[in-house]
Amino acid sequence: MFADRLIEKIKEKGNPSVMGLDPRPEMIPRCIWGDLGDSDQDTGLAVFRFNRALIDAVYDIIPAVKLQIAFYEALGLEGLRAYGRTIDYARERGLLVIGDVKRGDISSTAEAYRRAHFNGYMECDAITLNPFLGYDSIQPFLQSCSRDGKGIYILVKTSNPSSGDLQDLRVADEYLYQYLAKKVSDWGNPYKGKYGYSAVGAVVGATYPEELMNLRDIMPHTPLLVPGYGAQGGNGSHVVHAFNSDGLGALINSSRKIMGAYMKAEKPENVTGQEFREYARAEALRMKQDIVGELAKRS
Amino acid sequence: MFADRLIEKIKEKGNPSVMGLDPRPEMIPRCIWGDLGDSDQDTGLAVFRFNRALIDAVYDIIPAVKLQIAFYEALGLEGLRAYGRTIDYARERGLLVIGDVKRGDISSTAEAYRRAHFNGYMECDAITLNPFLGYDSIQPFLQSCSRDGKGIYILVKTSNPSSGDLQDLRVADEYLYQYLAKKVSDWGNPYKGKYGYSAVGAVVGATYPEELMNLRDIMPHTPLLVPGYGAQGGNGSHVVHAFNSDGLGALINSSRKIMGAYMKAEKPENVTGQEFREYARAEALRMKQDIVGELAKRS
Repeated sequence: MFADRLIEKIKEKGNPSVMGLDPRPEMIPRCIWGDLGDSDQDTGLAVFRFNRALIDAVYDIIPAVKLQIAFYEALGLEGLRAYGRTIDYARERGLLVIGDVKRGDISSTAEAYRRAHFNGYMECDAITLNPFLGYDSIQPFLQSCSRDGKGIYILVKTSNPSSGDLQDLRVADEYLYQYLAKKVSDWGNPYKGKYGYSAVGAVVGATYPEELMNLRDIMPHTPLLVPGYGAQGGNGSHVVHAFNSDGLGALINSSRKIMGAYMKAEKPENVTGQEFREYARAEALRMKQDIVGELAKRS
Repeated sequence: MFADRLIEKIKEKGNPSVMGLDPRPEMIPRCIWGDLGDSDQDTGLAVFRFNRALIDAVYDIIPAVKLQIAFYEALGLEGLRAYGRTIDYARERGLLVIGDVKRGDISSTAEAYRRAHFNGYMECDAITLNPFLGYDSIQPFLQSCSRDGKGIYILVKTSNPSSGDLQDLRVADEYLYQYLAKKVSDWGNPYKGKYGYSAVGAVVGATYPEELMNLRDIMPHTPLLVPGYGAQGGNGSHVVHAFNSDGLGALINSSRKIMGAYMKAEKPENVTGQEFREYARAEALRMKQDIVGELAKRS
């Protein structure tokens, strides 16, 4: 059961943050490229090595990683091969893996996406989904929640500046995202684990703290995946609202701040592999302290 | 300019229908498998041969093909290799290629998806996009519309049974899909070609004919991509509402009915390659007559 496994990992590490692995070739330092060239195959290998170094740096202090598949798709077949290899490696290191794929399509097609992302070389523990097509686009994934112990996070209120274009529309006497939150909570009701949380989660951005607070109330049993911490402007005092009074119920993502932590070095282009990992680990620890500290203040 | 190229192809072929290539291994006939086994590589090759046979059967009578990427993703890396090879082959045969990818993400990620689907081995002439994240998730693709002659189709009212869950919500005095249609029309205004149609299109399902008629009025300059014809229940009398009085402005998709036309054979498992192509071509011609006939009735 995904929510149970996630909660146990979070308790084990004492850390509700997830590292986003959204690699761009231009942000991979020279020490990782080594003698690789710029062919597709070498670029894919560099991406995998980059992710592996980041996982090695923090696997013992975080519960999960999140891979944004767009950055792998952009690198062709070798990029997607690196996506699959990274998933394998993260699991070997005992991490849960969330595929940030935001798929959404009619039911027969959703079933094909389910096979793609909950089986085979891209198999994740949980994935993100886009709800624009309604319940029948979500339904095939619910079967995997009960049968295969998988989890899903449905977009409710995203972190980007234009997220209000549709999500903040007024529907009767509420916002669309509030209406949707109730649906997501209902859809998840039959899939609760022993800690009371559902395998059906929601994506709610850290960049809208008031909405986050409100959505936490509307969906008390829904695990939240919270992007937007760090580079997008969210901080510990924002994301603390994503947690219930049990200190659980949320996973906070940071991608660019951890991946790019080594840019703080005086000469980033010259960092060694060890320095690269140390910068990433320091940022991951700083983030953990920030969030755990805010949670402690509240209790 | 995508809309111009599309209109010219439609006029050349006298046919506004597009063949959907959504292959499932279990629907590929024995004559195409030949001596291939069931390894990932052989399955990918069978999928490519299946698509190639379908393209060979109809390339001279249709303007475009649409590939639903989910069915390729479900087959792993070899499935995506077949996706890329099919795109290449369709273009060699003079067809426009629409990638039905329904991607939608925050701007920096949208930019990665733009690179993935408008460049490299998966480069399409147009792709479908999901608008749930609002304008900044669409914006990177607009640049490709003006700079690279690409096109996009934004989901407005989808063909599936649950499409009303969000799309039919009441927003002020209209439906969400109507509100969105106005946005899509506005977003597309700066990207009109010489025939008056924009590079920014919309997906509107054939299964909701009244909504289709209404959306055609709201978005007079927006090319429509209309799924749901055939296996999903739409027919010529439904989809005729997708066209403007100039007889243009819509592309009607059929996937399962053309791909699976050979199932009408007495012993489908024994069809030859030539019979397979003849069944597909007969169905594509029937569909063309159905739509062109309905258009003629109206004028």
